Amino acid sequence: MFQALADAVGAEHVIAGDDPSVADLCADEALGVPAGKPAYVVWPADREEVVAVVNAARAAGISVTARGAGTGLSGAATPDDGAVLLSFARMDRILEIDPVDAVAVVQPGVALDVLDAAAGEHGLTYPVHPGEQSASLGGTVATNAGGMRAVRYGVTRAHVLGLEAVLADGTVVRTGGRLAKISSGYDLTQLLIGSEGTLALVTEVIVRLHPHLPARRTVLAPFTGGADAVTAAVGRIVGAGLAPSVCEYLDGPTMRAVCAAADLTLGLPEDLVDADHLLVELAGRRVERVDEDAEELADTLSALGAAEVFDLPAGSARRLVEAREKAFWAVKAAGADEIVDLVVPRSAMAAFLGRARAVGDAHGSRVLGCGHAGDGNVHLAVFQPDPEQLAATLHGVFAAGIALGGAVSGEHGVGRAKAHHLAELGDPGALDVLRRVRAALDPEGTLNPGCSVR
Amino acid sequence: MFQALADAVGAEHVIAGDDPSVADLCADEALGVPAGKPAYVVWPADREEVVAVVNAARAAGISVTARGAGTGLSGAATPDDGAVLLSFARMDRILEIDPVDAVAVVQPGVALDVLDAAAGEHGLTYPVHPGEQSASLGGTVATNAGGMRAVRYGVTRAHVLGLEAVLADGTVVRTGGRLAKISSGYDLTQLLIGSEGTLALVTEVIVRLHPHLPARRTVLAPFTGGADAVTAAVGRIVGAGLAPSVCEYLDGPTMRAVCAAADLTLGLPEDLVDADHLLVELAGRRVERVDEDAEELADTLSALGAAEVFDLPAGSARRLVEAREKAFWAVKAAGADEIVDLVVPRSAMAAFLGRARAVGDAHGSRVLGCGHAGDGNVHLAVFQPDPEQLAATLHGVFAAGIALGGAVSGEHGVGRAKAHHLAELGDPGALDVLRRVRAALDPEGTLNPGCSVR
Ligand SMILES: Cc1cc2nc3c(=O)[nH]c(=O)nc-3n(C[C@H](O)[C@H](O)[C@H](O)COP(=O)(O)OP(=O)(O)OC[C@H]3O[C@@H](n4cnc5c(N)ncnc54)[C@H](O)[C@@H]3O)c2cc1C
Ligand SMILES: Cc1cc2nc3c(=O)[nH]c(=O)nc-3n(C[C@H](O)[C@H](O)[C@H](O)COP(=O)(O)OP(=O)(O)OC[C@H]3O[C@@H](n4cnc5c(N)ncnc54)[C@H](O)[C@@H]3O)c2cc1C
Repeated sequence: MFQALADAVGAEHVIAGDDPSVADLCADEALGVPAGKPAYVVWPADREEVVAVVNAARAAGISVTARGAGTGLSGAATPDDGAVLLSFARMDRILEIDPVDAVAVVQPGVALDVLDAAAGEHGLTYPVHPGEQSASLGGTVATNAGGMRAVRYGVTRAHVLGLEAVLADGTVVRTGGRLAKISSGYDLTQLLIGSEGTLALVTEVIVRLHPHLPARRTVLAPFTGGADAVTAAVGRIVGAGLAPSVCEYLDGPTMRAVCAAADLTLGLPEDLVDADHLLVELAGRRVERVDEDAEELADTLSALGAAEVFDLPAGSARRLVEAREKAFWAVKAAGADEIVDLVVPRSAMAAFLGRARAVGDAHGSRVLGCGHAGDGNVHLAVFQPDPEQLAATLHGVFAAGIALGGAVSGEHGVGRAKAHHLAELGDPGALDVLRRVRAALDPEGTLNPGCSVR
Repeated sequence: MFQALADAVGAEHVIAGDDPSVADLCADEALGVPAGKPAYVVWPADREEVVAVVNAARAAGISVTARGAGTGLSGAATPDDGAVLLSFARMDRILEIDPVDAVAVVQPGVALDVLDAAAGEHGLTYPVHPGEQSASLGGTVATNAGGMRAVRYGVTRAHVLGLEAVLADGTVVRTGGRLAKISSGYDLTQLLIGSEGTLALVTEVIVRLHPHLPARRTVLAPFTGGADAVTAAVGRIVGAGLAPSVCEYLDGPTMRAVCAAADLTLGLPEDLVDADHLLVELAGRRVERVDEDAEELADTLSALGAAEVFDLPAGSARRLVEAREKAFWAVKAAGADEIVDLVVPRSAMAAFLGRARAVGDAHGSRVLGCGHAGDGNVHLAVFQPDPEQLAATLHGVFAAGIALGGAVSGEHGVGRAKAHHLAELGDPGALDVLRRVRAALDPEGTLNPGCSVR
């Protein structure tokens, strides 16, 4: 097998999986998924080398797990034992930024912040902003990544116009194009988005860029009357057409943790730190309009029961948004045992938080929350060292979310961490269809078999 | 078979396909697709009856073609000979409008204008506006309909959050939910959107609604220097972030035809009527802002070579937009033999128009154009009574669009009219995948076998 892979990518780009130098690549950032033991790690340089790796692996009856930046939170990039781990790190070129059509064409290993900076040189932005901007385009396509700005711009799915990808049988397919829209047969682009490296390996991505919005205002509103009021405020803000570019919820403990981790003092009165917080950013083309909207926003928040409405200076705003993006590291450092990423109808967020905390209480687990409130996408940190109690807590939390009309993942994907939750809680008919689709595209189970729909 | 269908939906809701009363249902509005000869037409009342029809048809080895409002332009709802034609006309209830989460839950037979009016009572809108607002939710989901407002709001795909659907084997599946986003396995909602009744029959649709924007301004800019300048202007308008809610191109002859058909006099100087026209509508929450943006828009258009920039009074604006929506009827009445719906990169629209006209000239065909310029989606009317010359013209036009990076359909779908163009011009690897997906979901070819990916 080594020789076949060396023939595919060059011997200097193959390393045995038990080599200590690749230990860091054998897991992503998911808290509950143990590292895998791949047979080999390979770094192809281009599409043809990806094809050669897939063909070699399939011929040997070995599976292939793709790895982007490894920032995933579901164990989707954690290789199956004995697999070939295929890193896209060398395929990291921006092939084109076309400011006229406002599209970018990139290799999958390009990091989000690199693309966004390159787009910025043309007054454009790529607005997919998960908390970790080192994530790769390929990885974000494979997870359908969301992030804070999705409330305004939509998730990855809304931005990908076309793909080039390698199927399990080594065929190269091209989907979509530099096209604002398309209705020419089933949408293979959309089918591959969110498929977590199980249907195809993406070797090129065409994305839509957006005009950069220079004007910005950020307000922080602590609510002391419970999360219900936060949920109501979010509905009103979105409903009014204010189109916030950030609309985040943080409970008191999470606010404390992220501020502490970022060494950030907002100067909130001590009793307000423990409130339920709503952090809202408005962005636009013109300062006057954003200022005017910020007034309307503040009025709305006050009217709906915010204890205070803080108009954050630009520096603090940026630091708080960044600290919120890094909430995962803060709760990880605090010893969180699992992160939950359920999505529920926007109006059900408070109800879900309440039920999730009750489930936690019943099992002696601590449950903290923040989330993309504008999307009803809740990130819970669950603290429970006992594996059985942890499993019971998670089971209860997932069941509570599904009962409210939710789904197991809003943006982190299914990966290995949630495959059994999806199998248990998803719609049986729909899951059966997805399994048939998977079998039709990858009959031998070559692509990331331990991951996603099983 | 009659009895099996009568058992499924009640005898009073089954009619033999050769009954004159159903003649109008045997074709959609596609110009080049002859009417089909269904064995029966049935009108189920609910999901269970749809299941029963599908099961009865499959058991008898007969196929099923779904019909919404029959306004499609690709022959997708034209039944195969001998098929059961399943009309969703009786499943036309709005089940819920939820103003808090800004979603609607509807049966597939609900017409777009009915939903939009109901949403309007809550200050909301369903912004999918193909030219024919009598189109059904089910039909628009099945074609991934676009329309004029897609340039701002996106196509149907951007608005559908969840579906209930009946598979070829009679299984009922539920996808998505009232969820702003989801990443929980491959996205079956997205796979079904645009599948033209070939993968499943949609029995319920959950869509996102948007705040109604009360302020509006519309300008008409004739360009006498050729369509290149129009294309450049569109790029600049979208690039500036003006977010037009309508951004339409009309060539001179089309402008003449739609104004004549609508009995609309805009008072343009005669020499300007024959120019290339750009029609742009801005919409927003506040009048002052839209007015300010309209100034910016007018300046941009003048700077980029518009011969004039007419600020249309509200009444004329509405009538011109409506007349443009009805362009199909105008060119049909004028004797058009085919309508083409290619989509190309936005910046390639003028080049495509030029090449398409050259192809027309080479075959003695008249080629007129209008289109959703903001999306690069061109609607050509081709006048050529001779079938061979017509086929040669269409072949050349499709090849020209594909060569510019385009796709066979931007929004009307593949249907029966374009199935061979797609098979010939689509990416072979991608088409093979789509065929495998289709076979996996409908192994016996029960659902609309003559349509779409073949
Ligand atoms: C601090 C922090 C904050 C985060 N915040 C968010 C957030 O707000 N929103 C959000 O959505 N996510 C968030 N994430 C999760 C993570 O950033 C995303 O899931 C991201 O999409 C992963 O990208 P990656 O390149 O790291 O992919 P990886 O983790 O390397 O892989 C993810 C999946 O993609 C597959 N894959 C990778 N490349 C390819 C390819 N070229 N072709 C096919 N499959 C491929 C892998 O096999 C795997 O299944 C956060 C993570 C961290 C650590
Ligand atoms: C004057 C005019 C202007 C138009 N302008 C536009 C435009 O601007 N943009 C645009 O996109 N389209 C436009 N169209 C085309 C048409 O309106 C759209 O294609 C629309 O989506 C068709 O909806 P329908 O209900 O009439 O569907 P039908 O024509 O009845 O069916 C279309 C397809 O959907 C399938 N289908 C219907 N219901 C279901 C269901 N419940 N489940 C599964 N499959 C189903 C049918 O089998 C068929 O494949 C225009 C048409 C006309 C006549």
